[in-house]
Amino acid sequence: MTEPVRILAICGSLRAGSYNAAALRAIVALATEGVEMRTAGIGELPLFNADVEAAGLPPAVPALREALGWAEGVLFVSPEYNHSIPGVLKNAIEWGSRGPGDLFSGKAAAVTGASTGAMGSSRMQAHLRNCAVSLDLLLVNRPEVMIGRAQDKFDAQGVLTDEPTRVYLGKLVVALRDLALRLRPNP
Amino acid sequence: MTEPVRILAICGSLRAGSYNAAALRAIVALATEGVEMRTAGIGELPLFNADVEAAGLPPAVPALREALGWAEGVLFVSPEYNHSIPGVLKNAIEWGSRGPGDLFSGKAAAVTGASTGAMGSSRMQAHLRNCAVSLDLLLVNRPEVMIGRAQDKFDAQGVLTDEPTRVYLGKLVVALRDLALRLRPNP
Repeated sequence: MTEPVRILAICGSLRAGSYNAAALRAIVALATEGVEMRTAGIGELPLFNADVEAAGLPPAVPALREALGWAEGVLFVSPEYNHSIPGVLKNAIEWGSRGPGDLFSGKAAAVTGASTGAMGSSRMQAHLRNCAVSLDLLLVNRPEVMIGRAQDKFDAQGVLTDEPTRVYLGKLVVALRDLALRLRPNP
Repeated sequence: MTEPVRILAICGSLRAGSYNAAALRAIVALATEGVEMRTAGIGELPLFNADVEAAGLPPAVPALREALGWAEGVLFVSPEYNHSIPGVLKNAIEWGSRGPGDLFSGKAAAVTGASTGAMGSSRMQAHLRNCAVSLDLLLVNRPEVMIGRAQDKFDAQGVLTDEPTRVYLGKLVVALRDLALRLRPNP
């Protein structure tokens, strides 16, 4: 029997009422077959500083690195801030990328995001694809899932109410799972 | 007599021995005619979180916003992390962009950066130009200054020793000053 694919999901917004956190909850609730999903907390990370790294790491850093070490796939669910990746998420990427063991390298990944405008995080996603080259992440190309007009797709409690969005998010997780499976070494 | 152009310089690396911090010191030391330069500290900013913003800001945030309010031009001196803008710098941009008063909008800006490789921060600069659209910053186009192979251009004490680099940095500050002057309202 095939072991479930271990996916680490990272949310790029720290806001409690975030549409992206809500989208991530909806993804977890899908309980996609053959997937074991964990979420990473990135809100306690310090600002990246190689001097801090040399002096001794606060616990949030080894916790993130442990989670990345566990994962065979990474799922980014993030807003777009100022036409790019939120600093909060990029900071987490920095800490993860510096871990001993090249923690992102060769792994499968996927990206999605929600916004209240029409773009649905598309420019964030484009920049993240550039960063993925440096990280050596292999990103799912299809489907591309941008959740625009999020205020019409989640209710006031942050529950996803839009069925087409749920279907697309499901397809994205399946695509990530299947890419991770293809990347597994032959037994 | 023309008032000096008020430029706020922001370094994208927090490392004490950073080549970018060294480049910024070299720029300040140029004491370019007609320029008053301040530097912004961004290492004490919290990770951006709209909930923190709503609950009450730690002092580093109003300090950054005050400095941005003072400035008529912004100079970014930053490394490239994972093919993009350091999370640390992007986080500062987020806090600045959310200030009341649209603190970047309509201002002149310039970007440069140092790296130990050949690229000299070029991909960071490209992404920052994308963000500048959102911020409504008007970025200097010429010269483009990428400081590649920084280890050959600064000494062990972080003093810029490469004369062509000093000349380029001077031209960049002059271009930023002149763009800011063109953007001043007619008296």
